[in-house]
Formats: sequence, structure tokens, C-alpha cells
Amino acid sequence: MLIYDKILAKKSKAFRQWMKSFDLSYGVQAGEELKAVENFPKHIQHLVKLCENTSSRRLTLVVAGGGSVGDFGGFVASILKRGVGLVHVPSTWLAAIDSAHGGKTALNVAGSKNQIGTFYPAKQTVLVKDLLLAQPEERSFEAFSELIKIALLEGGEFWRKLRAEKEVTSEMVWRYLPQAIAGKMRIVNKDPQEKSGHRHLLNFGHTVGHVFEAYYELPHGIAINYGLDFALKWSARQGILSAKAEEEIRTAPVSAYLLSAERDELLSARESVLKKWNQLLLQDKKKNSSRRLRFIFMKKVGQPVIKEVSVDEILMELCRQKEDELHD
Amino acid sequence: MLIYDKILAKKSKAFRQWMKSFDLSYGVQAGEELKAVENFPKHIQHLVKLCENTSSRRLTLVVAGGGSVGDFGGFVASILKRGVGLVHVPSTWLAAIDSAHGGKTALNVAGSKNQIGTFYPAKQTVLVKDLLLAQPEERSFEAFSELIKIALLEGGEFWRKLRAEKEVTSEMVWRYLPQAIAGKMRIVNKDPQEKSGHRHLLNFGHTVGHVFEAYYELPHGIAINYGLDFALKWSARQGILSAKAEEEIRTAPVSAYLLSAERDELLSARESVLKKWNQLLLQDKKKNSSRRLRFIFMKKVGQPVIKEVSVDEILMELCRQKEDELHD
Repeated sequence: MLIYDKILAKKSKAFRQWMKSFDLSYGVQAGEELKAVENFPKHIQHLVKLCENTSSRRLTLVVAGGGSVGDFGGFVASILKRGVGLVHVPSTWLAAIDSAHGGKTALNVAGSKNQIGTFYPAKQTVLVKDLLLAQPEERSFEAFSELIKIALLEGGEFWRKLRAEKEVTSEMVWRYLPQAIAGKMRIVNKDPQEKSGHRHLLNFGHTVGHVFEAYYELPHGIAINYGLDFALKWSARQGILSAKAEEEIRTAPVSAYLLSAERDELLSARESVLKKWNQLLLQDKKKNSSRRLRFIFMKKVGQPVIKEVSVDEILMELCRQKEDELHD
Repeated sequence: MLIYDKILAKKSKAFRQWMKSFDLSYGVQAGEELKAVENFPKHIQHLVKLCENTSSRRLTLVVAGGGSVGDFGGFVASILKRGVGLVHVPSTWLAAIDSAHGGKTALNVAGSKNQIGTFYPAKQTVLVKDLLLAQPEERSFEAFSELIKIALLEGGEFWRKLRAEKEVTSEMVWRYLPQAIAGKMRIVNKDPQEKSGHRHLLNFGHTVGHVFEAYYELPHGIAINYGLDFALKWSARQGILSAKAEEEIRTAPVSAYLLSAERDELLSARESVLKKWNQLLLQDKKKNSSRRLRFIFMKKVGQPVIKEVSVDEILMELCRQKEDELHD
């Protein structure tokens, strides 16, 4: 059974042709509404009805779409008849490099993201070059934060190659997909269900990135770029990241993509904004006690360091980085 | 966080006292409505709200109730924050002997039972004698079908002891709980996620039992008794169960509980009834292709045999057993 983003069928004749190879299919509209648990009964009723004459043993869901469709379709596969086969066909760069790998599925509850879900790795994730390249060129930029995140966490050959790149393009992201995915999976496989804490490394840049994403309604990739920049600056200020190591990162041409003209304007020291950011940080479900959370700093390329910090320390550092910008 | 059947709090002072030891609690009304996916958004919104200030790492759901509360609470535990701790405290004999063990969780979709769910074993299942004995004595009878089912599947010492019993009582069911659970878990552990087919043995007596349960709205335990009786009679007619082995089972005093005065009246050869039974059999989600399913026959005590049969063969055997009754 195919679960697919309707926009793909609308835009591509090749996709419509491919759809015909499925016995059953269910089109959805991508976005956070699809992941709202409030809409789930309606979807699951249709899906159960669709496959009522199919043996659950032989049923495989093929899920074609971006992050929201993958989260939704993966969740359905994990609970339908207590779990059926799952194949992801990501249609966005972000899904192709990140969310289609590692087995996380999720729905939102009362507007809060990913409050329920499962760990349910796909049997296969199929990367279709034509499908990915059909996106506007600028979308590739959204996958860049995950690409540089994994390269910084892994270091070595991967980072040395990425360092030499001049520009982020679709072609470039496509070329690095296998390495980025393998790097992510090396971390995931050590802690597939987030029990030991090792998988938490993948949260590098995401603590503050998620705050920007939610508060300014930025695309995920852009917000995480800023979150990575924040984490690197904080690592340097704390003396965890040496000046030499920082320079090695900052002088890589692609590191320029972590920043943008708009980024500085997003920083704020206004009380009303900080209050909201405080709330958003506390909502972070990876918190390990009421006001403390594990933050990923960088010691040098390939050497992340997890340290427990308080929400207040993060807010203070956000204010400090705002001040630095004013003085620059 | 405690999820509990409200009736327990209403009926027992000791239970209300125990409830106070929990930081968070959520009372539910037991029954199939609790398991309806249509009601799930409302429940999960309350539950997410209740635990919003609790670290998911430290959260354990303790689920106190019968089968429906266990199925619901287990499902919640398996998906809340992608899985939190789970402890079952079964309050009915049927839950204590069967559904609280083996990790199955489930919700219903559009009136069809257990269409979605997970495999999510509890960290612990706590059997509380006072809680179980607080039930009316006749409820213990409902657990008997699972007790004799496991004894027949296992054979050996377990069956020899059960053979010697004269009467089914609460005290007797309590005494056999450890052996019955261990027997079930030996089968479950060989095939925890129903992949190899070994776990299907636990379906002994359930194929036709479920038809009676749904069609006549019988209690599960009673319906499965009839289903076991049907399977034994069919095994004998097919020559799979020898006359000697059949006698060994039928002469055990407790085997009388498999039958009842009402049972014969439930058999029917009316076309309208058979048509509905046909539908119910096809709905059985363990079917492995459109009109065939795996049925568990008995060769002798301790030697079950799985054979693929068609829905029509089952319906024909139901008619034959009806005729036998008429001729007796």
C-alpha cells in the first residue's frame, strides 16, 4: 500500500505512472496537520478499510513524501495490525538525509510536536534521484545543516572532503547522501531507542535551533544552521572549542552557510521573547529534569562533548551572543 | 503515572489508599469504548498534559485494570514519548492469566477489534491476590479457558496436576497462575512478534471462540471454552486426535467446564447465521490469505498441530457438530 504526498502525483507524470504499480494507495496532504493526533482516527479508519482484504503478513507500506508524511506513514506502519512492512521513499532533501533514517515516527498532540510515536526502522529507504532533483534548487540548502552536523560529529575523511567544497547545491547534497546517512546510522545503531544517551549527539545544534524554528516559524534546515552556529560560539566562549579548532571550522567555505544576514536580527534580549524561549526550551522533551538539559558542545571536529546545562545558562548565552553582534 | 479502572477506586478503600502513592493518575471507564481509536485523541491529550513536566526517561505507566484497560494503557505506554516504562496490575482473572503477559497492546478501529496496536512487553506484571479475589467467585471461571488451553498445549506435569482437579474456583485459578503464565511465556518467547508463526499456537480454541464471542456477545472466557470444545471435536473427527487421547481429555473432571447446557443451542445451520459467521471468520486478522486460515488441532495432550483450513471447512464442521447434537 502506497501512502503518498498528493502534491507529488499532481506535479509529476512519472510519479503517477509509478503509483499504478500499487494495489492500494492513500494520498495525504503534507504538513503538521497530517501529524495532528486529532485527525488520526479519520486517517486510520480509511487505511484499515483499504487493506481489510489484505493479509497483514504480506502488507508493506511504501511511504513517499517529506518529513511529515514519513513521520505519519512510519507511525501507521508501526501500529497497523501491530506492525507491517515499511519502505520510505523520501521526496525532500531533509527527509532523504535525516528523517527517513533511524526509525523515528511521530504524531503531534494538541499542537505539541512529536509527543507520541515509535521507533520503527524502515526495511528499506529508497533514494530516487529524479524525485529529489525535481525540487527547487534552493531546497537543497535545507539539508545542509544535517550534512555539516554529521560531518562535524564524525570528523575524519568526511569533514576533510566537505571542507574543500565551495558551494551547497542539489548535486553536492546528492553526492554526500551516502556518507551523511552512514554517519547518522553509526550513531543511531549504538543507541537505536535513545536509551544510553549516545543518540542524543544527533541533537547537536537542535536545542536552540528548535527554539528559532518554533518562535520565528523558520524552515527546519535554516533554524538548525543558526542552532549549530550558536553551539559552536558557546563552545568557543566556554573554552571547550580551542581557537585553532574554531578557525578550522569557520574557514571552511561552506561554514558561511551557517550564518545569514537575517540571523543576527533573530537574537533578542527582550524579556517577553526570552520568556517564550524559556517555555520552548522547557518543552524540549529531551530534558532530563525540570530546568536542566543536555547540550552538545564541540571540543574539536569529530569530538562532541555532552554537558548538562540549565535553561537559564542557554538564555544568558543567547543574550551574550546578541550583545556580541551589537559590538561587532 | 497510574492509569486505572475507575470502578476499582469506587469499590475498594485499599485501592484508593494505594492510589495516593502516585504523583499522577488518570481514571478510565473499562470496556471496548475505551479502546475505540475515535476516543483516543481526547485521552492522549489529557495524558500528555498530565505528564508535561515529567521527564520521559523517568516516567513509568502503571496500568491497573482488566483486559481493555491493559490494552489501552499498554498502547499508551508504547507510544507516549516513543515509549515509557510499563507495569501491569491486572484486576481480572482473564487479564491476570493472559492479556497482561506477552506484550500485546491494541485499539479498535471503526468497531473492528485490535486493528492497531504494538508489541510492548511490560517491565513487570504485579499479581495482587486481594485485588483478584475481590471479584465475584464466578469470574474465575472466565480464566479457565486460558488455563486449560495452556495445559493442553504444554501437557506434562501441568496437565497431570490439572487433570486431578475437581472444581474451578478463584483459589484454584490463583494457584495455577504462575504455571499458566510461564507456559504462555515459553510460547511467546519463541516468537514474541508473531513472525515465525509459533505464537499462533496460543490461538487454540480462539478461531471459532471469537465467532461465538462476537455473534452472541458472550464473555470471552465462555466463548473460548466452546471454541476449545469445537477444536477438540474437530480434531477427533479428522482422526488427528486419537480416541484414547480424546478420552484422556474428556474424562478430566474440569473438562466438563468446556461445555454447558447453553452451548448446544448456540450452534446453528441457518443460512443467515452462517453468512455472518463467514464474515466474522474472514475478519480474523490472522488469516494468511483470502479464504484460508491456520487452525490449531490437537494430536494429543502437549502436541498441537497447525493446519491450514478454509473458512468453508470450518462452517461445514460447525453444521456437522450441530447435527451431532440433534442426534444425541
